[in-house]
Amino acid sequence: MLTNKRKIINDPIYGFVTIPNALIYDLINHPYFQRLRRIKQLGLTNLVYPGALHTRFHHAIGAMHLMQEAVLNLKQKKIVITADEENAVLIAILLHDIGHGPFSHALEHSIVKGINHETISSLLMDKLNKEFKGKLTLAIKIFNNKYKKQFLHQLVSSQLDMDRLDYLKRDSFFTGVSEGVISSDRIIKMLNVVNNELVVEYKAIYSIEKFLIARRLMYWQVYLHKTVLSAETLLVNILKRAKELSANGIKLFATPTLKLFLITDFAKEDFENDSALLNEFANLDDYDIMASIKVWAEHEDIILSKLCSNLLERKLYKIELQNSAITAAYKNKLILKVCKLYKITKKEANYFVFNSLVNNSAYLANKFNITILMSDGKLLDVAKASDQLNIQSLSKTVTKHFICYPKEIV
Amino acid sequence: MLTNKRKIINDPIYGFVTIPNALIYDLINHPYFQRLRRIKQLGLTNLVYPGALHTRFHHAIGAMHLMQEAVLNLKQKKIVITADEENAVLIAILLHDIGHGPFSHALEHSIVKGINHETISSLLMDKLNKEFKGKLTLAIKIFNNKYKKQFLHQLVSSQLDMDRLDYLKRDSFFTGVSEGVISSDRIIKMLNVVNNELVVEYKAIYSIEKFLIARRLMYWQVYLHKTVLSAETLLVNILKRAKELSANGIKLFATPTLKLFLITDFAKEDFENDSALLNEFANLDDYDIMASIKVWAEHEDIILSKLCSNLLERKLYKIELQNSAITAAYKNKLILKVCKLYKITKKEANYFVFNSLVNNSAYLANKFNITILMSDGKLLDVAKASDQLNIQSLSKTVTKHFICYPKEIV
Amino acid sequence: MLTNKRKIINDPIYGFVTIPNALIYDLINHPYFQRLRRIKQLGLTNLVYPGALHTRFHHAIGAMHLMQEAVLNLKQKKIVITADEENAVLIAILLHDIGHGPFSHALEHSIVKGINHETISSLLMDKLNKEFKGKLTLAIKIFNNKYKKQFLHQLVSSQLDMDRLDYLKRDSFFTGVSEGVISSDRIIKMLNVVNNELVVEYKAIYSIEKFLIARRLMYWQVYLHKTVLSAETLLVNILKRAKELSANGIKLFATPTLKLFLITDFAKEDFENDSALLNEFANLDDYDIMASIKVWAEHEDIILSKLCSNLLERKLYKIELQNSAITAAYKNKLILKVCKLYKITKKEANYFVFNSLVNNSAYLANKFNITILMSDGKLLDVAKASDQLNIQSLSKTVTKHFICYPKEIV
Amino acid sequence: MLTNKRKIINDPIYGFVTIPNALIYDLINHPYFQRLRRIKQLGLTNLVYPGALHTRFHHAIGAMHLMQEAVLNLKQKKIVITADEENAVLIAILLHDIGHGPFSHALEHSIVKGINHETISSLLMDKLNKEFKGKLTLAIKIFNNKYKKQFLHQLVSSQLDMDRLDYLKRDSFFTGVSEGVISSDRIIKMLNVVNNELVVEYKAIYSIEKFLIARRLMYWQVYLHKTVLSAETLLVNILKRAKELSANGIKLFATPTLKLFLITDFAKEDFENDSALLNEFANLDDYDIMASIKVWAEHEDIILSKLCSNLLERKLYKIELQNSAITAAYKNKLILKVCKLYKITKKEANYFVFNSLVNNSAYLANKFNITILMSDGKLLDVAKASDQLNIQSLSKTVTKHFICYPKEIV
Repeated sequence: MLTNKRKIINDPIYGFVTIPNALIYDLINHPYFQRLRRIKQLGLTNLVYPGALHTRFHHAIGAMHLMQEAVLNLKQKKIVITADEENAVLIAILLHDIGHGPFSHALEHSIVKGINHETISSLLMDKLNKEFKGKLTLAIKIFNNKYKKQFLHQLVSSQLDMDRLDYLKRDSFFTGVSEGVISSDRIIKMLNVVNNELVVEYKAIYSIEKFLIARRLMYWQVYLHKTVLSAETLLVNILKRAKELSANGIKLFATPTLKLFLITDFAKEDFENDSALLNEFANLDDYDIMASIKVWAEHEDIILSKLCSNLLERKLYKIELQNSAITAAYKNKLILKVCKLYKITKKEANYFVFNSLVNNSAYLANKFNITILMSDGKLLDVAKASDQLNIQSLSKTVTKHFICYPKEIV
Repeated sequence: MLTNKRKIINDPIYGFVTIPNALIYDLINHPYFQRLRRIKQLGLTNLVYPGALHTRFHHAIGAMHLMQEAVLNLKQKKIVITADEENAVLIAILLHDIGHGPFSHALEHSIVKGINHETISSLLMDKLNKEFKGKLTLAIKIFNNKYKKQFLHQLVSSQLDMDRLDYLKRDSFFTGVSEGVISSDRIIKMLNVVNNELVVEYKAIYSIEKFLIARRLMYWQVYLHKTVLSAETLLVNILKRAKELSANGIKLFATPTLKLFLITDFAKEDFENDSALLNEFANLDDYDIMASIKVWAEHEDIILSKLCSNLLERKLYKIELQNSAITAAYKNKLILKVCKLYKITKKEANYFVFNSLVNNSAYLANKFNITILMSDGKLLDVAKASDQLNIQSLSKTVTKHFICYPKEIV
Repeated sequence: MLTNKRKIINDPIYGFVTIPNALIYDLINHPYFQRLRRIKQLGLTNLVYPGALHTRFHHAIGAMHLMQEAVLNLKQKKIVITADEENAVLIAILLHDIGHGPFSHALEHSIVKGINHETISSLLMDKLNKEFKGKLTLAIKIFNNKYKKQFLHQLVSSQLDMDRLDYLKRDSFFTGVSEGVISSDRIIKMLNVVNNELVVEYKAIYSIEKFLIARRLMYWQVYLHKTVLSAETLLVNILKRAKELSANGIKLFATPTLKLFLITDFAKEDFENDSALLNEFANLDDYDIMASIKVWAEHEDIILSKLCSNLLERKLYKIELQNSAITAAYKNKLILKVCKLYKITKKEANYFVFNSLVNNSAYLANKFNITILMSDGKLLDVAKASDQLNIQSLSKTVTKHFICYPKEIV
Repeated sequence: MLTNKRKIINDPIYGFVTIPNALIYDLINHPYFQRLRRIKQLGLTNLVYPGALHTRFHHAIGAMHLMQEAVLNLKQKKIVITADEENAVLIAILLHDIGHGPFSHALEHSIVKGINHETISSLLMDKLNKEFKGKLTLAIKIFNNKYKKQFLHQLVSSQLDMDRLDYLKRDSFFTGVSEGVISSDRIIKMLNVVNNELVVEYKAIYSIEKFLIARRLMYWQVYLHKTVLSAETLLVNILKRAKELSANGIKLFATPTLKLFLITDFAKEDFENDSALLNEFANLDDYDIMASIKVWAEHEDIILSKLCSNLLERKLYKIELQNSAITAAYKNKLILKVCKLYKITKKEANYFVFNSLVNNSAYLANKFNITILMSDGKLLDVAKASDQLNIQSLSKTVTKHFICYPKEIV
């Protein structure tokens, strides 16, 4: 019954989001998708920005809403998009993050190694496609850039896709970092298609610049915020320790599903060959992790219990973030202090002193570029169309090195 | 080190909230308070309004922020508030919800019977007061309305307290129900104190009316929204069944802390006499509940597993809400249908067919009234000061009866 | 060339407003409509709320935008609205205020007596219809409620029309009185048509209550704000004095068009018979008035010059607003004081001591009621559908009496 | 009576602005300042962005509000600012734009040649200082950077002053160009003073980058928007023609004050020597200009009347904006077309074909730089402190050439 399933969802950002048809309604109600309600979009960012509790569920719905607007706008500009294509591109964006696991990126390589969320998204979409009797085939083609109308894929995944437009707006809204606000309205109104490629009309050039700057700002002010890095490093180390103890036969409280992933390291092939395993993964969410961590805070392994209670009580690592690499000597000095203070081995101290690096480019000059449609009809890469070369400089990758260690040793 | 602890917290609603001193900083960092990060302000409301994931932590911080503004404003009007009193009233509002358990009101009488969150707040404050060597004594006096300056208590708890101003704004913001927006700024600017009582200057009369209407609207549109009622009823029934099974010696997965509360029904005295028990309670949060429910969805008791998987997959009860009472005959008819469909007993069917009532008064005419300071200096109850008697009608209690049952039997 | 004329207009409230076709584009560019750029929506309200400088132009465009949304929503609900009807209802709302004169309501009965702005709107629409060769005929029918589909007229003019939805939002936005904010989105989504009548679905009942309360609040807090009343009374008295002096042959500086209206009192018939006169009226705007007042502030008639310089320097009357009528004795006392202070006659003193009354009903129970579509399909007046009878009380007319006099005599 | 004069002003941007004392209250009520209510902040920008009707009055009040916040924040960081200094810096920002004439920048060099608004601000402040018996002396010193505490001047006038913070926020708000939104809150919280110089703490570096980008975006998208340039060029040409006609003895309708400035070209000395002349200037505002233009639209000089009716009916010039200079040949071709079409001389055609250039630097690297306070206590220019050299590129001046001509000759 289509009419019955035509529903609206409240969104503090867009007002109302309309679910356009019964198929999409059923996808949203599928347990795989409902699960996203229990996966925070921004991992542990809420420890710094307490409002940042929004979920992958809300983001996926929001991105679908922007896609509806983008398609409407392109059709008004006489770009041909059939009803089937429209439906497929909506489904593709709706499901683009379906493979995310607990705390999104924060644990992406901790729970299952060597498999990113895109791979799992793809496997889950295939599984859903069987369940829905092939109705997702076109959506999957678009998602994987196998469909002739490339611009549809670009709307789902490129440097100016509906994913980014939604997450910048949403993350900005819930963190309260108002500087991340972008004008998705204006950008969407200025989208066009030339030679099967998604382009932006010249009028929007300043909005695009602003969008790139906003994205960069959000990276350094939110996504790679020192304290967020520190918290997520702690979380990664907790999982690592829990897996290590499990591997050594030490018994740990955990939900049955989490236990499975603590004990075994699965490979991509395992997921491909074992549909039940995929279902198990699709049963994991933030709650499995945090409920277990709360119990582990009382575990007799003092490394595990200390890491866990630190997270729960927000006693985060001190973190230093710098342009140059962390020297081995400096790290070693910190390790020794920790060994002495906690009476643990050097190997164990690596759970408390930890270094790595993060990097970000606001714009990648050679991958799904943002193309500007000039007033004279020519196409130009945004890095060339801009007046002040800002965007060229934004293309540089910025790398920062960081080291975390307990505040107590300072 | 005070200066080091002068921190700001991002809030998408107020911009920045300042932590005014080291004591408050330490209270916020106490595990009791950090725990509020894991307790959603609005229980399961996010199943209807997906943005409503905000926590008691954020609300308490926000209410403290409004209290800072209210105190500043009153002091500018030459109302005497000493530094100690100011600090105490800030602490009182900060801790007013410290006793909330998982999912806030939704499970208030399910996990521990016969004890409301205010009682536990009070017990936890006493405990904190010992830990902080009596520094909370004045705050507790104000909280319990035992302090001579009654208006300070009214700022914490009355029909126009900082609690309400914050939660209306915050719930409105995160649900996206823009009609709940109130002008806390204007109301706070118009507060005054006469005869030791908190009053509002006449100029703000329309803002007060609007505030009462907004609160009423939020009740029916959000707090008592049909689908929210349906979801929270489901949650209550899950806990009830889990306790029943536990009482019958059936083994259930649960975090150790939750297990304790499943097996035993504690009374107020238990908490008063057993400080460790209070600590156990203070270890419970949304994660214990949801992680357990996810496991219970596979339990062999089909009543428990059905209730749980219904919640996880958002297959909520159908709910009817009406002004008149639900007739026994109607309920019985539904019960029989459920018995037949699920092949269960009538007693068991009560987990699937459930009726109750909800009520709300926008304004209580005889308890901590809102008093208006008229231009001529006289004081008048808002219900009398208003032009159109709206507020008198708002004082009536509206009661609605509801019955929930599975959609499948329709 | 239609495509060329498909334009978007920036609106800080709605983001972008789209001009749907060439005819509407041409109407917007007509001098009659462009003139609305120079007529403030809220008269002299900016003397109290400095942001309230928005114009009838912006309001008309905004109301048209809401109409586009309303029509789209109704069509999605399978209400038949043909392309011609859609266009006509858009034009009707676009032009509904075309007859407003300088400072909108403030001078409505000062410049031309006995003719309200609706009459002039109607005359101007007829004139435009001739110019546009009959293309406005259907729009005019709808505007005058002569078209069979009555609900189209109700969208233009009723107690829940697009006019009100826009002006509440807009006036609230520009004054900064956030409590006037209404959820036009939600209300529009809940509109429906039953038996040729515009109705609102039951779900929106709280939004409707809120809308009525917001409107009432805006009346007392903005539209009938004491200081606004005082300022607009001053403006009315200025025009009155200028006309009186002109009638007595005293020369006054004025733009040629204003001079015409100062000297002659035109009647409705004059406008009907003299198309040039209508054009003259359509040449008047805020600039004619204020530029003249600035010169009059130096006029040798001390009454006129005093009134004018008071307005320019914002030395407004003191105003008393009360529920009971102003007594003749009180007024007389004030008049005598003014006579003495300014050394003027009693008759002249009436320019400085002035009393009148204002009234407002938030809801009129018997004229284009707001009809609620209940869940069971029945229709109910909103005053009966509401739980708490608030709306019945809102139907009462509130009357306030006021008297203005110079602050100097206090 | 100080207490009586402690007033609040509604601002849709900041909520409420408090007038801190009686002196500032009296300055705001002075006719010189009230006049700013009649001078639009953004000239004719409302022809493109219809919401942009806000005034210099509102901007000055808003900038004062930000100054209050900045001073409060600096004092909390133990920067010594005495009560007198605080008052003076508030007055300095309040009056910084007091010298603006009709339509702000648009007519800055048309009404009075060779004198910018800062000069007139300075003269008016001196005049006010006399009237207020020297109470503005310190404010004037700060305004003119003659006071030892240079950072106070920098708060009033530098590349990160309260003027800019307010106008970006305000112009963004009223135009609806959301991308201009900046986080003035965050920037103000991060201000500090080192070595008597205003600096920004390192944490705010991304906010500063964002602020510079937003400013640049506002320049090209709003302040130098093609259609705004076209409209303001038209306005300048109208004044030029009116002066030319007046110089030739042709009679023109005008308010007495405007007439004075049409007939005579005053020099800076005239204003210095003739206090009455300054008063005349302080009597001019948008109303004098527009009321006159409306009459001129019927003038027998076809150049003047055509220019004026074009403005009133929004038949603006077509404008071409480009990076390279306009060639003489191209301009000449257009001139010839106009001569032919309108049957006017080449000299007259210059009123219809007009070229010039505009330029903008987002950041000036060598004038009141923005200085960053690094975590290690060092000071660095923002152009060096930034990661990606964006700011260096922002320092380049971008120049654009434009030519305007009637659409009819295309």
